[in-house]
Amino acid sequence: MSTSAGLVIPCKAAVAWEAGKPLVIEQVEVAPPQAMEVRIKIKYTSLCRTDLHFWEAKGNTQLFPRIFGHEAAGIVESVGEGVKDLDVGDHVLPVFTGECGECGHCKSEESNMCDLLRINATRGVMLADGNSRFSLKGKPINHFLGTSTFSEYTVVHSGCVVKINPLAPLDKVCILSCGISTGLGSIFNVAKPKKGSSVAVFGLGAVGLAAAEAARIAGASRIIGVDRSSKRFEEAKKFGVNEFLNLKEHDRPIQEVIAEITNGGVDRSIECTGNIDNMISAFECVHDGWGVAVLVGVPNKDAVFMTKPINVLNERTLKGTFFGNYKPRSDLPSVVDMYMNKKLELEKFITHHVPFSEINTAFELMLKGQGLRCIINMEA
Amino acid sequence: MSTSAGLVIPCKAAVAWEAGKPLVIEQVEVAPPQAMEVRIKIKYTSLCRTDLHFWEAKGNTQLFPRIFGHEAAGIVESVGEGVKDLDVGDHVLPVFTGECGECGHCKSEESNMCDLLRINATRGVMLADGNSRFSLKGKPINHFLGTSTFSEYTVVHSGCVVKINPLAPLDKVCILSCGISTGLGSIFNVAKPKKGSSVAVFGLGAVGLAAAEAARIAGASRIIGVDRSSKRFEEAKKFGVNEFLNLKEHDRPIQEVIAEITNGGVDRSIECTGNIDNMISAFECVHDGWGVAVLVGVPNKDAVFMTKPINVLNERTLKGTFFGNYKPRSDLPSVVDMYMNKKLELEKFITHHVPFSEINTAFELMLKGQGLRCIINMEA
Ligand SMILES: NC(=O)c1ccc[n+]([C@@H]2O[C@H](COP(=O)([O-])OP(=O)(O)OC[C@H]3O[C@@H](n4cnc5c(N)ncnc54)[C@H](O)[C@@H]3O)[C@@H](O)[C@H]2O)c1
Ligand SMILES: NC(=O)c1ccc[n+]([C@@H]2O[C@H](COP(=O)([O-])OP(=O)(O)OC[C@H]3O[C@@H](n4cnc5c(N)ncnc54)[C@H](O)[C@@H]3O)[C@@H](O)[C@H]2O)c1
Ligand SMILES: [Zn+2]
Ligand SMILES: [Zn+2]
Ligand SMILES: [Zn+2]
Ligand SMILES: [Zn+2]
Repeated sequence: MSTSAGLVIPCKAAVAWEAGKPLVIEQVEVAPPQAMEVRIKIKYTSLCRTDLHFWEAKGNTQLFPRIFGHEAAGIVESVGEGVKDLDVGDHVLPVFTGECGECGHCKSEESNMCDLLRINATRGVMLADGNSRFSLKGKPINHFLGTSTFSEYTVVHSGCVVKINPLAPLDKVCILSCGISTGLGSIFNVAKPKKGSSVAVFGLGAVGLAAAEAARIAGASRIIGVDRSSKRFEEAKKFGVNEFLNLKEHDRPIQEVIAEITNGGVDRSIECTGNIDNMISAFECVHDGWGVAVLVGVPNKDAVFMTKPINVLNERTLKGTFFGNYKPRSDLPSVVDMYMNKKLELEKFITHHVPFSEINTAFELMLKGQGLRCIINMEA
Repeated sequence: MSTSAGLVIPCKAAVAWEAGKPLVIEQVEVAPPQAMEVRIKIKYTSLCRTDLHFWEAKGNTQLFPRIFGHEAAGIVESVGEGVKDLDVGDHVLPVFTGECGECGHCKSEESNMCDLLRINATRGVMLADGNSRFSLKGKPINHFLGTSTFSEYTVVHSGCVVKINPLAPLDKVCILSCGISTGLGSIFNVAKPKKGSSVAVFGLGAVGLAAAEAARIAGASRIIGVDRSSKRFEEAKKFGVNEFLNLKEHDRPIQEVIAEITNGGVDRSIECTGNIDNMISAFECVHDGWGVAVLVGVPNKDAVFMTKPINVLNERTLKGTFFGNYKPRSDLPSVVDMYMNKKLELEKFITHHVPFSEINTAFELMLKGQGLRCIINMEA
């Protein structure tokens, strides 16, 4: 038992008061965890595009004030009633999707889309009672993705909390709680390229480069990066990307260019931009007979995927994945161990560091498309 | 060596002189097989919708006169130069797609879309020399799919000829050379439903019912047949279909009806009508997290497959197959053996028999949607 267990904790949190406006560090109150919940002291958090997306809130639900943040690592401060497998002091990753362990998805070998705890970006409260655990001068503040890690303390459903190796450095493995695992899993769990195969990666951000890195680890020999920004290529070389196609330099569909340079198409492709034209290209650029395309990027609401059915009949496979098909609690500890065993390098994804007080710098960097991940130190 | 080897064989063939007009039994001459070709004495042939489709030739290439037919069984009469693994007297199935054994597809574990011998409906000649082996009063007659089995003798590329168990009754196993294998393979090789799972089958013709039968053999417990003709349901019950949805009786998308009665969607679906709306329904009716949809039916040229990308991202898989992913020469002998070992019943697919002289009756039955397969006896 920690001394703070059962008490409200006053602490600092970065509050988004309005869409697109800089966050403000405020003194907030964090209520104790209720049944099946865990209160976590966040040590490091990083910024992912999904935070930016809902902070900009263009065409999205406007749930403000809100505490964003979902890529993070921390230590359990206290646990609510009924929490069995997590304890005070455990090192953990909070994750935006969960594992209740009992629904059809959790029981399926294939799915990680838990009925109870799957991602929900439009809910600003906790599941247990429909209330927020955060308040500021008595007024509730909205949660985000059930994680809200831009706060010194946060409350998360225990099904979304992953206990990891206590020796793992939290300032590195925090990035495994979203984008990097999504990219890795899309290759390791879904696309599964064979040794010596060719892989096209659309979008060379953190997710796409994690996919490229996984393809390299899986033994793919030809990794073709597709982006609309040439400056991405230099960085991408560190992640196994050994050919580059800039969409802006081609005036015909990029799938035709890819078919030409690969004698019919790549063995696997991964879409990590969320752009619908790229999704179609990613599908049509795989080889007939055996090609597999995997969609990862999140599209606009009104986008429609279109292709001639003969492209499907000619034995191409189209798949989609969410968090790289990892079941967070069951699978993430082994991804952390891959890092600990030097089978996976995380340092190269981390291009910037800022103290919590300068969290808005992380937003500026991402808006300018600079770097990959910016680590925010909650104690600096 | 047969006594006819190397000689032109005069024999009877059913010639299509014009699109949509009854076939005419004519005396034709069949040239000897050239290098890598085989001349086959056809014993039994059956009519498949693809024959009808190209005979009607609505909007398709008009290659007349032509000898149709691609579902058949026969005995090798003679072999051309270089043919090593087939001999006079072998019992064989000619197949509309082949296996050269050397291209990327033949070497791939997954594909059966041989670069050299894959289906080509617009070619009316043999690959070796670009000529026909059939002539009538000195004028060439077009081949169809490289098989042209509506003739007492035909010439086929050896890569499209499958040697089978000589004890197998040719009047039964002839139907394995196209539609039935396509349906079986779409389940056994592609959809792979697990024991106890649910499967939706769109289109309850020969292909769809072969898929249903395979799903039953694979242990699927809930097999939902979807068609626009209620009379299909009685027949379908013999093939494991235990629920039926008539598209005409529902005025909302059938995928919604399926999601409702299956608590979120079926585990697998197979599209065997070729209708684009059914293809979209077949994809959208599978369960998120693990559902797999397989397209089998051949669409119109201008059809476009459309779906919201979120349907893909929610971990549904879309696949297509051609001849059920069977590599004809490598895989069909074991399908014949399944029948011989009583693991597969073929009799129930055979609803009619006619002598060769009455081949037009087979066309009439199919046009009226009566029965499944009509066996044409070449010697009666
Ligand atoms: N499925 C999931 O579980 C999951 C999880 C995390 C992120 N995502 C999604 O993955 C995608 C990538 O995330 P990220 O963090 O790597 O983003 P990012 O902004 O770091 O990188 C995106 C990259 O794509 C490129 N790009 C953007 N639009 C493009 C276009 N139209 N054509 C070509 N290139 C284009 C950019 O130049 C950039 O290099 C996003 O859509 C994100 O929402 C999905
Ligand atoms: N991929 C391949 O290798 C391959 C091989 C053989 C056949 N096929 C295709 O498979 C399909 C089925 O072949 P078959 O021999 O079983 O045909 P069939 O005519 O025997 O059966 C078709 C069934 O679908 C139903 N149907 C047709 N249109 C429909 C619609 N719009 N909505 C609902 N039901 C509809 C019919 O009532 C019938 O029961 C065809 O498109 C054929 O070209 C594909
Ligand atoms: Zn669950
Ligand atoms: Zn994220
Ligand atoms: Zn081949
Ligand atoms: Zn056929």
